[in-house]
Amino acid sequence: MKLIRHGLLGKEKTGIVLNDSYYDTSAFGEDYNEAFFESGGLDRLKSFLDKNKGSLPVLPEGVRLGSPIARPSKIVCIGLNYIDHARETGVEPPPEPVIFMKSTTALAGPNDDIVIPRNSKKTDWEVELAVVIGKKASYVEESEAMDYVAGYVLHNDVSEREFQIERSGTWDKGKGCDTFAPMGPWMATPDEVGNVDALRLWLSLNGKKVQDSSTVNFIFKIPFLISYTSQFMTLLPGDVISTGTPPGVGLGMKPNVYLQPGDVIELGIDHLGQARQNVKAYESAKN
Amino acid sequence: MKLIRHGLLGKEKTGIVLNDSYYDTSAFGEDYNEAFFESGGLDRLKSFLDKNKGSLPVLPEGVRLGSPIARPSKIVCIGLNYIDHARETGVEPPPEPVIFMKSTTALAGPNDDIVIPRNSKKTDWEVELAVVIGKKASYVEESEAMDYVAGYVLHNDVSEREFQIERSGTWDKGKGCDTFAPMGPWMATPDEVGNVDALRLWLSLNGKKVQDSSTVNFIFKIPFLISYTSQFMTLLPGDVISTGTPPGVGLGMKPNVYLQPGDVIELGIDHLGQARQNVKAYESAKN
Repeated sequence: MKLIRHGLLGKEKTGIVLNDSYYDTSAFGEDYNEAFFESGGLDRLKSFLDKNKGSLPVLPEGVRLGSPIARPSKIVCIGLNYIDHARETGVEPPPEPVIFMKSTTALAGPNDDIVIPRNSKKTDWEVELAVVIGKKASYVEESEAMDYVAGYVLHNDVSEREFQIERSGTWDKGKGCDTFAPMGPWMATPDEVGNVDALRLWLSLNGKKVQDSSTVNFIFKIPFLISYTSQFMTLLPGDVISTGTPPGVGLGMKPNVYLQPGDVIELGIDHLGQARQNVKAYESAKN
Repeated sequence: MKLIRHGLLGKEKTGIVLNDSYYDTSAFGEDYNEAFFESGGLDRLKSFLDKNKGSLPVLPEGVRLGSPIARPSKIVCIGLNYIDHARETGVEPPPEPVIFMKSTTALAGPNDDIVIPRNSKKTDWEVELAVVIGKKASYVEESEAMDYVAGYVLHNDVSEREFQIERSGTWDKGKGCDTFAPMGPWMATPDEVGNVDALRLWLSLNGKKVQDSSTVNFIFKIPFLISYTSQFMTLLPGDVISTGTPPGVGLGMKPNVYLQPGDVIELGIDHLGQARQNVKAYESAKN
């Protein structure tokens, strides 16, 4: 299944992708949130679709998409998880995964504007494969970790490099600004994705491809990341682990390139669709 | 007002402290959560109490207390915010606040056990004054920041120093283990607290006082911290900013002292009550 959420920001309704068209599933009566994943919601949704897929309302072209999952309890991110990206940022690949957290208020729809924060000079992009957790995970064994996956989603881990690196303190300061976590278009269940260790992912800036790699280049693979993260905190159903970005971010370019109002970002991952984000200045976005 | 939540973990009911006794306010019909703070819940609660305070059920002695606020969207923590604590950890006071995040799954009641995580050697304590945000805060001016405070709560920012500092990546790895954020006993509204810049706070380990300071020693004061944090992320009603810890943590002792199963921590802050936490090993806590 490919789950979507659509409608006004903060008032999203649920939907589903069938044969490349978007359908409303409001009649299902549940949001795609922690309670949904925790209580076997994916199975209930499947039953609902088996019964109703012929009669679901089709959504209009151009409908706004929200994040395909409702606000999770946390967005955990893995840093420097592609061998080439670690090199481009000038640091050695880490001996074990780097973990940081993104404020969940950063969550946005896949095609929403990216808003450059006030006083930002170094807003950057990071295409990532994000994993959605399906059940409560604490001290999970690597061999069992894939049982804890509800699905996968395309994520732009937008990052303000000055806030992240030069403003004292941890990376979190540059990761959680509003609109810095566009997710979607859809959350695909594992059966839709196939081999998650060989997905092409890419990002283009104003039509020029700047990131283009494959999850085959992970330093730490998904079962290890789930197991590892669950040693340090309990992951709840609907929580997100974003698995790091490949080379090609603005911080890695010489000279550095950062986002400017008017820029357009497009990104995609095999089986997880594409997203397009217009970059705006904070002041204009508020008007 | 002094708000409490009581009952079984995950099924807490609301309550209130009146004349040092605990009363149930389930009849009020709302939890102390984001929706409550966002919609003027404190005013509604005050009206409810004005009408009903003579007839509220008193809670039994020894009732379990949960966190006085329901799970927030985020727990933002400030590092190294007492001049002497920065020195004891061997680093210079930061030029601007250090921000990190605590997984909200770490939230616990004030007298719940602290569980030492598996493979932990360096679990440490940090008594802190935590601020609960009352309304959505983005780019707040320092001069208006106190209008965004719903109340204050006693917090032990339990920290695993090896996970935090020696395991590659940000501090978050050592801050968000289950039970690492005991809060309470109560959330006090600002009128109950008086001058928040001169509150004594202390923590004892097995009866010996190890932290004993005052918020007069803040490097960055609360209005600045709220304004500053709100430049990097939107704070939601019910969110927590924990303001840092004074000297006397185990990491600062020579030789270092870390928590062992059987240890007892007591801590308190003027007007915010006291808490007592028994330290357990992970394996025994699960049994």
